[in-house]
Amino acid sequence: MTVRHLVSIDDLTLVEIREIFAMADRFSTDLRGHAELCRGMISASLFYEPSTRTRLSFESAMLRLGGGVLTAADMRSTSASKGESLADTVRVVSGGYSDVIVLRHPSEGAARLAAMYSSVPVINAGAGSHEHPTQTLCDLYNLWVERGRIEGIEVVLAGDLRYSRTIHSFAYALARFGANVICVPAPGFELPDYVVQRLREEFGVEPQRADASRLGDIAARSDAVYLTPHKPHQLSLFTDARGLTVERVDAVYMTRPQTERHPDGGSGISDYVRLGKDQLAAESLRDAVVMHPLPRRDEISAEIDDDPRSIYFKQAARGVPIRMAILAVLTGAVRLETQARVPEVRLHRTPLGDNPCPNPTCISRTEARHVHPAYKIAARAPLRAHCGYCSQELRFALVGCTTSRRFHPRDSSETRKIRPDHLSFFSDERSALGAGFLPVDRPNPAPTSVEAGGAPIRAVPEPG
Amino acid sequence: MTVRHLVSIDDLTLVEIREIFAMADRFSTDLRGHAELCRGMISASLFYEPSTRTRLSFESAMLRLGGGVLTAADMRSTSASKGESLADTVRVVSGGYSDVIVLRHPSEGAARLAAMYSSVPVINAGAGSHEHPTQTLCDLYNLWVERGRIEGIEVVLAGDLRYSRTIHSFAYALARFGANVICVPAPGFELPDYVVQRLREEFGVEPQRADASRLGDIAARSDAVYLTPHKPHQLSLFTDARGLTVERVDAVYMTRPQTERHPDGGSGISDYVRLGKDQLAAESLRDAVVMHPLPRRDEISAEIDDDPRSIYFKQAARGVPIRMAILAVLTGAVRLETQARVPEVRLHRTPLGDNPCPNPTCISRTEARHVHPAYKIAARAPLRAHCGYCSQELRFALVGCTTSRRFHPRDSSETRKIRPDHLSFFSDERSALGAGFLPVDRPNPAPTSVEAGGAPIRAVPEPG
Amino acid sequence: MTVRHLVSIDDLTLVEIREIFAMADRFSTDLRGHAELCRGMISASLFYEPSTRTRLSFESAMLRLGGGVLTAADMRSTSASKGESLADTVRVVSGGYSDVIVLRHPSEGAARLAAMYSSVPVINAGAGSHEHPTQTLCDLYNLWVERGRIEGIEVVLAGDLRYSRTIHSFAYALARFGANVICVPAPGFELPDYVVQRLREEFGVEPQRADASRLGDIAARSDAVYLTPHKPHQLSLFTDARGLTVERVDAVYMTRPQTERHPDGGSGISDYVRLGKDQLAAESLRDAVVMHPLPRRDEISAEIDDDPRSIYFKQAARGVPIRMAILAVLTGAVRLETQARVPEVRLHRTPLGDNPCPNPTCISRTEARHVHPAYKIAARAPLRAHCGYCSQELRFALVGCTTSRRFHPRDSSETRKIRPDHLSFFSDERSALGAGFLPVDRPNPAPTSVEAGGAPIRAVPEPG
Repeated sequence: MTVRHLVSIDDLTLVEIREIFAMADRFSTDLRGHAELCRGMISASLFYEPSTRTRLSFESAMLRLGGGVLTAADMRSTSASKGESLADTVRVVSGGYSDVIVLRHPSEGAARLAAMYSSVPVINAGAGSHEHPTQTLCDLYNLWVERGRIEGIEVVLAGDLRYSRTIHSFAYALARFGANVICVPAPGFELPDYVVQRLREEFGVEPQRADASRLGDIAARSDAVYLTPHKPHQLSLFTDARGLTVERVDAVYMTRPQTERHPDGGSGISDYVRLGKDQLAAESLRDAVVMHPLPRRDEISAEIDDDPRSIYFKQAARGVPIRMAILAVLTGAVRLETQARVPEVRLHRTPLGDNPCPNPTCISRTEARHVHPAYKIAARAPLRAHCGYCSQELRFALVGCTTSRRFHPRDSSETRKIRPDHLSFFSDERSALGAGFLPVDRPNPAPTSVEAGGAPIRAVPEPG
Repeated sequence: MTVRHLVSIDDLTLVEIREIFAMADRFSTDLRGHAELCRGMISASLFYEPSTRTRLSFESAMLRLGGGVLTAADMRSTSASKGESLADTVRVVSGGYSDVIVLRHPSEGAARLAAMYSSVPVINAGAGSHEHPTQTLCDLYNLWVERGRIEGIEVVLAGDLRYSRTIHSFAYALARFGANVICVPAPGFELPDYVVQRLREEFGVEPQRADASRLGDIAARSDAVYLTPHKPHQLSLFTDARGLTVERVDAVYMTRPQTERHPDGGSGISDYVRLGKDQLAAESLRDAVVMHPLPRRDEISAEIDDDPRSIYFKQAARGVPIRMAILAVLTGAVRLETQARVPEVRLHRTPLGDNPCPNPTCISRTEARHVHPAYKIAARAPLRAHCGYCSQELRFALVGCTTSRRFHPRDSSETRKIRPDHLSFFSDERSALGAGFLPVDRPNPAPTSVEAGGAPIRAVPEPG
Repeated sequence: MTVRHLVSIDDLTLVEIREIFAMADRFSTDLRGHAELCRGMISASLFYEPSTRTRLSFESAMLRLGGGVLTAADMRSTSASKGESLADTVRVVSGGYSDVIVLRHPSEGAARLAAMYSSVPVINAGAGSHEHPTQTLCDLYNLWVERGRIEGIEVVLAGDLRYSRTIHSFAYALARFGANVICVPAPGFELPDYVVQRLREEFGVEPQRADASRLGDIAARSDAVYLTPHKPHQLSLFTDARGLTVERVDAVYMTRPQTERHPDGGSGISDYVRLGKDQLAAESLRDAVVMHPLPRRDEISAEIDDDPRSIYFKQAARGVPIRMAILAVLTGAVRLETQARVPEVRLHRTPLGDNPCPNPTCISRTEARHVHPAYKIAARAPLRAHCGYCSQELRFALVGCTTSRRFHPRDSSETRKIRPDHLSFFSDERSALGAGFLPVDRPNPAPTSVEAGGAPIRAVPEPG
């Protein structure tokens, strides 16, 4: 049986996610009543950066299911310091030590790499600034519990929409579920263009100007944007020059300023929105729940902690049943009814040339051993591809074919003829020549002993 | 049902403590025989400073009761570093993650704060240099096991009685149980005056000079003091100019020099008492058990480790059954027979003005977020109050009323008329005026929008 | 009943080891099927240096047996920093906290010391560069599983045979089991003379030159040595000037360069052997399994990870069932059928004089408290003795008798008359005189109050 991992929320279909929500609901009504499900199983928390809250949430979930827990809360300063590769660590820990691995790592794509080498399910508990799928699932679950559905609801994303990649994942997921999103960024913290582009390309989301004046103070200094699927479900809004009018909101999702990623170290956040009694008094927020991934600093005032709309502590608490459900499903303790699986995304190794991933903190760059650059093809004309680990778009100017040993400009129609497994990426002619490739107008070179294109490598998820 | 915490040993009545001792006795005869009591429950060790021994003792107790354990041994460098307040952390961890929280923190009053925000029982596993109630319970339990009773026994406290606040808690507890205490401090390490004062005021203890010559070497360089309740239970001692004569001792409780708190860093402790074979040879110590909270350094010689009177390792071992009993009671796994509870101490918020707590390491000063200064009233004429967290006496010169907006000298009889919830404390006139208060001889000010006195806040314990 | 520890693999008889292998076999076929064996028991991981892999392996084993786990992954910076001795820590943790202690410590002999003070079994999980018996058992178990036997098989030890003391332990164990060893060191990393000497003295191993040309590349730059028991079991090899010819090998055991112990910090390891496809192509290695204790760095190429002969990940995985077996035996959960035990090695305290152990990282030197130098006698004429903790040979020039107060040259026949418990060791006359001893040609001194020779101290293992 194929091992199933949770590296990205895209590893789950919408139907599966809804089943998981229903399962979490059952767990949450009796947290202590399911201690037989994972009896005898062991989960291993491999944390390469500290995240006590996430770790305790997973470990609590496993204990509630009756399983045992192995904790390595400080992997970076222990086995990693002995020079062991992540791939080797995962092979060892998945070899009898544990029945599921919960991985936290500072490099994007680390969980994808781990899943390639693990013989037990790997759960991504946060990899760099990339995905944190159980946080996203928990947030969606909260909306589902509080609103009864996600499709068609109105969600305000407020605060730092630029540097918080967790909120990017959340935005994708909301779009996938058909929710409408009102972006109310702090000035200078707008959603980046590449996120908006992906929302448009993958989910058919059309950004529009929004008139957020009814949101009151939290949107006062913000150029609000309305993100809505092409077929909005309950919108009958009048659009004028000010944009779609925001009337009634289902949820406000606040984020803290990710000062550690700000170019100026966070010194310019005096304008940052702060949610307090006055802000919550806006009529459009009368029924809105207030969410926050926590930890908060000052962006949510303690004065609204007792407001029944403030659900951020409930939201955190629901992380336990949602993680119980994920553990139960991945370990096979509970089977999902649906048989449909997300189709496998095929990853290809880059057989030659430099690592085309532009992300310096991608696991393909930070791991010295046992990582081969890999990619997945996004489009063929012109050729576009994403890193197989961190999903960032690859940067290259030339494309080589490892069979013909020729290289072409990226936008040449010739590139369409090259099989994916034979593609090589080069930033310039010099590096292509250095790898033994020739431009198309030179005579054919003698066959060389250079190994031809790498075999495609297994990616997750696979068809069940 | 109200959640019950163990922040201070004063949260328990003497009857409850005796029940807990009896329960610990049952547990200790078969440590592995009670694994059904907390089956399915989870305790979370939140340790903001390292204390491996205490942590392992609690975790062992929970495992012995069949429960699970979440460990955060290094909270200070993990979630606290992300700027999360203790209040928020406690709200999250008590929200489904765990069924009981064991908290260690470097700031006095941290456990009191945590108990205010936790929806599950909080156990104080040491907060700064303040209380460490399970250590005190363990020490009392040892006396109870070894001597059959605590009332009326003779306990020598030796070593650093000045800087070891654990021994202060122990002294209060001994007084509460009616034990007689012989203080034999190392020179310069006498019991502080404020401890003696509290012993006198709260427990009716009367300090007297003691003739400790029969204690031999351990008291040779010490000005011994005899602390006895007003109604001594078995004293028929002849008192002369040398003081009450110490005849026969039930227990010697040694402490290590708290060099980290000594003004000179511990350089002047060459005179520190050392307990060895010679010291134990004193006739008065023939039946005395030797106790030490551990870790010891050189104040107890290894040469007496095998002496049957040396019970310090047994003493540590008894920490497991005593903590099992505490966990079992607080989680509701076992019910106490007695229904009597310690009456609730009412805490009041200080609605205005500076934090009147003089203790720089009190949690009300070290926590930047979600802590409101709070106090409990000790006396009304003259007004005296203690910090609601660390219990230190508040320092103030002026007292304001948030309703009349007037302030008075501390010893003014006017202060008696102010309701507790309307009290504000000021160190001087300037800060009172700055807060919008006027002296009594000025005309009444116009009503202001300044919020009136804060509501009383829940304190633990509450009536059951 | 006497508590049984696992400090050294020599604490187990060959028959016991084979029983443990058979038990591990049963466990490995159903890792989750034995969760009743240690139900209600607790193991405590006391790690004074980080070793996540070893710790997780033991904790997984205990959880698989149904027991609970206490984790202290960072003892050095916690309780040890408070100045507590290892002896005291062990006495506390073994006193009710846990039912078995798994100890990792940077000082050689630490587990021996711990075993002296523990009232529960102590398992040595690595003590300095000395023994790591469960690693050795795991390695032997792998050979036993893969080859069906250990006696008479041919094992290549490759790489750093000089600074890797784990491989020294493995070499002793192979000799004890009657395996033949082919040493193929990297140049400059030959097996040290004292190891070869012990192999000869204790196990009757006779080193011979070996012709390793058929091993191919891995032995190309190496002066191979053949270590074979006096009665080789299946050797019918022709010996000529080139030495015994290595024909067919059962296992290749690779080690990483212990650069942290190299005098030059590892800068001169460019010649270090690297195992890849080409090296494995040698005919003599056709059936050899490839082993490595992990973590590896570059000494094993990832290109052979999928080779069926590469068992290093299986090898690590088998650490769980082997540790389950050890825990089950030591805790008494499973009884061994054999009643024969390794005879007790008697340790003697050195009553006077300096610590004769020459090893600066021996626990007898690194622990400030509660450690008495101890020794075991290896030979009487001339007198040779080993440190009772780290097993290194003691260095001394003079021998004193604590009864006669006389000292003698080490090779004097007089030393034979001194009872072991009365021996004192001195590096020179000055220190002997300083301790109150006289040479034999001086008049008898008056009796002094200096305490006579220490009593013998219990050592492990004892007869069952």
